[in-house]
Amino acid sequence: MIIEATCDISYTNESEVPAIFMLRPKSGWAQWIVEDFYRVFPQVQIVEYDDLYGNLCQRLIMPKGEFKIDIKIRADVQETLSVDFDAPFTPTHLLPTDVLHYLLPSRYCQSDQLGDLIKEMGLAQVPTYKEVEAIRRWIYENVEYKYGTSDASTSALDTSKSRQGVCRDFAHLGISVCRSVNIPARMVVGFLHNLDPMDFHAWFEAYLNGRWYTFDATQDRPRGNRIVVAYGRDAADVALTTNFAPSKLNFLKVSVNALTESL
Amino acid sequence: MIIEATCDISYTNESEVPAIFMLRPKSGWAQWIVEDFYRVFPQVQIVEYDDLYGNLCQRLIMPKGEFKIDIKIRADVQETLSVDFDAPFTPTHLLPTDVLHYLLPSRYCQSDQLGDLIKEMGLAQVPTYKEVEAIRRWIYENVEYKYGTSDASTSALDTSKSRQGVCRDFAHLGISVCRSVNIPARMVVGFLHNLDPMDFHAWFEAYLNGRWYTFDATQDRPRGNRIVVAYGRDAADVALTTNFAPSKLNFLKVSVNALTESL
Amino acid sequence: MIIEATCDISYTNESEVPAIFMLRPKSGWAQWIVEDFYRVFPQVQIVEYDDLYGNLCQRLIMPKGEFKIDIKIRADVQETLSVDFDAPFTPTHLLPTDVLHYLLPSRYCQSDQLGDLIKEMGLAQVPTYKEVEAIRRWIYENVEYKYGTSDASTSALDTSKSRQGVCRDFAHLGISVCRSVNIPARMVVGFLHNLDPMDFHAWFEAYLNGRWYTFDATQDRPRGNRIVVAYGRDAADVALTTNFAPSKLNFLKVSVNALTESL
Amino acid sequence: MIIEATCDISYTNESEVPAIFMLRPKSGWAQWIVEDFYRVFPQVQIVEYDDLYGNLCQRLIMPKGEFKIDIKIRADVQETLSVDFDAPFTPTHLLPTDVLHYLLPSRYCQSDQLGDLIKEMGLAQVPTYKEVEAIRRWIYENVEYKYGTSDASTSALDTSKSRQGVCRDFAHLGISVCRSVNIPARMVVGFLHNLDPMDFHAWFEAYLNGRWYTFDATQDRPRGNRIVVAYGRDAADVALTTNFAPSKLNFLKVSVNALTESL
Repeated sequence: MIIEATCDISYTNESEVPAIFMLRPKSGWAQWIVEDFYRVFPQVQIVEYDDLYGNLCQRLIMPKGEFKIDIKIRADVQETLSVDFDAPFTPTHLLPTDVLHYLLPSRYCQSDQLGDLIKEMGLAQVPTYKEVEAIRRWIYENVEYKYGTSDASTSALDTSKSRQGVCRDFAHLGISVCRSVNIPARMVVGFLHNLDPMDFHAWFEAYLNGRWYTFDATQDRPRGNRIVVAYGRDAADVALTTNFAPSKLNFLKVSVNALTESL
Repeated sequence: MIIEATCDISYTNESEVPAIFMLRPKSGWAQWIVEDFYRVFPQVQIVEYDDLYGNLCQRLIMPKGEFKIDIKIRADVQETLSVDFDAPFTPTHLLPTDVLHYLLPSRYCQSDQLGDLIKEMGLAQVPTYKEVEAIRRWIYENVEYKYGTSDASTSALDTSKSRQGVCRDFAHLGISVCRSVNIPARMVVGFLHNLDPMDFHAWFEAYLNGRWYTFDATQDRPRGNRIVVAYGRDAADVALTTNFAPSKLNFLKVSVNALTESL
Repeated sequence: MIIEATCDISYTNESEVPAIFMLRPKSGWAQWIVEDFYRVFPQVQIVEYDDLYGNLCQRLIMPKGEFKIDIKIRADVQETLSVDFDAPFTPTHLLPTDVLHYLLPSRYCQSDQLGDLIKEMGLAQVPTYKEVEAIRRWIYENVEYKYGTSDASTSALDTSKSRQGVCRDFAHLGISVCRSVNIPARMVVGFLHNLDPMDFHAWFEAYLNGRWYTFDATQDRPRGNRIVVAYGRDAADVALTTNFAPSKLNFLKVSVNALTESL
Repeated sequence: MIIEATCDISYTNESEVPAIFMLRPKSGWAQWIVEDFYRVFPQVQIVEYDDLYGNLCQRLIMPKGEFKIDIKIRADVQETLSVDFDAPFTPTHLLPTDVLHYLLPSRYCQSDQLGDLIKEMGLAQVPTYKEVEAIRRWIYENVEYKYGTSDASTSALDTSKSRQGVCRDFAHLGISVCRSVNIPARMVVGFLHNLDPMDFHAWFEAYLNGRWYTFDATQDRPRGNRIVVAYGRDAADVALTTNFAPSKLNFLKVSVNALTESL
């Protein structure tokens, strides 16, 4: 299915503001970018580069005054997520070297400190897709989705205690538990069709049976129609916007719509 | 200025044809991709990856029957090329390590075998921008632009003798001469506004004074309004389309238009 | 000066233990590896690869029984650290793209949460080398070096409160404060001549004036004669040994000696 | 088996000579560097970096006067090459993306121009390990190994006509034929135990059945005990020494010896 995501952002800056945006998705093996529109007003010089994880980043200096960003993405994506309850654990000595990185603890995913939670979840010794799905469901059922209960400093350890949070907290918790049992896991940010209320979204992927699988602990069942914008170890790596000086955000509007096949 | 390039390609395949396309430009420091449309019919799975040079490549298997590719790019590019007659030679021991690669001879650029031509050109010992411009002009004045005089196997060495060729031959010759005097040089393929007749185009860049400068030996003067699609050592690296089985090309149409600022 | 570092490690394993070691230094711009000896008993298949940061990593499966690792490195290194009190802050919009990564908070360096400490330190608005040196000295004077007061889960935030720790805690604190004022900072692990008691060591580097400078908050003055083994965002990235199953460490002995110039 | 390779090089320079060496091997999946000694006299600053192919390169400026390089490598390598006559062709659409590069023609391997030779060899449509071995044997039997018959500009196309050359020419021919039938192939330089006369050596690898296999057309049968120093598309990529100014080579001595297991 082809889905269209748009994002309109407006800032007002009192002075020049160096910034990095991560707002241009790349095509991957399950996502084809049919159309990509990325316009800023006023037009300034922008340098685009790949970060350590292969995400496209846009560096620029926002001028004084109002600065607007208009983005539209049309992507051909999977309506249905790949689900495979029989996908086995990949033993650590068989993991590809570029995946090992996703076993490490990170800013928001203290996988080394979640012993109590792991016990409470009662995970199997050799976890498979089924166990990751159980982790996801546990989070869905035991953590309350609630705006305003967490902030930019909230980590998985915090959420394991508060049992409240938003999509990034749900993802951090899922990632942390996976890593604690030696399943590589990574943060994903992007768009989800029919998310309510509509906004940027975050979820996670776990590496099983030689590939990445998508998991979203904010939803009651596996749902496709996602556009991946960036991957990272956790939210620290995938900030969609980073400003290096004060900047007033006027608005940030996100929309995601399904298109018929015939463009 | 914003220019719009389109490309329509149609193949007819008697069987499945694995292919690699290099048709999606990236934003760089002098080019901002405002809009990018890339559609294939019928829609098949496409995997996009970065090659060794950072070019985006699209891998797919064209199905039996007709296969079409529609591309549209709108890019904000420089109307006027950077020109700096005083830009000095960068001594080899000061070149960034990722540029050293472009000093090496390659399939179509036998920089190690152009001694006679170098003599004929009478190059200075320590070449600067001025000398590269003189090389470019020498090629412009001494090589005849003529379709059908070269083919996919024609190298700079061939062209140094035949003194005939098309844009890629002009670029190969310029690259080879630069490398022979230790100036890193690379092949560029993309679009040029007002090229006549319109087609994909090829030119080269030379590394001087710590940065890359654009040179085009097919033109009588420096001209901007270019969209870079891919970089490489020579044409072997930057084939815009590669088919791994026989495929009939029905047509390949290219257009490049200037847009007014206000989209 | 040429210094020689050795490291002997012995494990006893009850079963096969997949492991990753990070024990082979690379030559860099201020360190030349003259000699490198790396032997394991029994000899098993080892695969060596570069991680995300360019560190050489060794993957292997330790067999059942005793497993020994013998390492000897002779490196030509700087006796005196580069010190430049006038090195200015590099504005974020001028940082190389591959350095931006080191501005982000990480597992042990919650640079986003050290507001109180920053206030206590009274840092200048636009910090230079002088300020980083002041940070280093503040840590040296205000944090007590004491074994057993921290463990593998201790972060800079913890240390900012406990004011006790070992070399890695000192480094984490320095890194965190630098990042909080937009100075890229990274963790370094390796060897330091005349460290007392001798052991692996950790310190940090800060990016100022277009290059990395070395800082070590465990020492009362800048000291050279270091061998860098690995770089990373924090200790999570640069574990010198990682075992993916239980393994009994029998001993780990480190020695560092100065050699006369004439090998 | 552990083999020891040494290399002593002496230059006399009339002035400073910027140079790049590629003389430090890396451990790989079939080669473990137990010991590595790399010393230059006089000691100058050396910067080591990874090139595009992952080879370690050493950049330096040789001072005026005599300059010496002493190298000793002890490596644990396979006594017997992996041989698998049943290893099938890997279809191009299943090749890993980082291998595709080795399908392209290059400076010395004009795989696009060897049609006549391919016909003469009578290759199967879908070539397997058996065919690559037949190519290797064909070269061994039909090309005469003779010093002085080729030089730094000799390409596979030249050798296909002259039927004379040295190890690098044999490798270039093998690589070119493989690529012409869509088998990725790459150049290898390094050391071979019991090579007669002793020198640096060159051979090639072909990608079949999801991995690289070693082939050496200068030998009558598969022989192990090799140390790989560098990989590349062809000899242009893997020059062990590159001088950017005139330099007089006094001598270059290579030795390779087998060691008993007990160091």
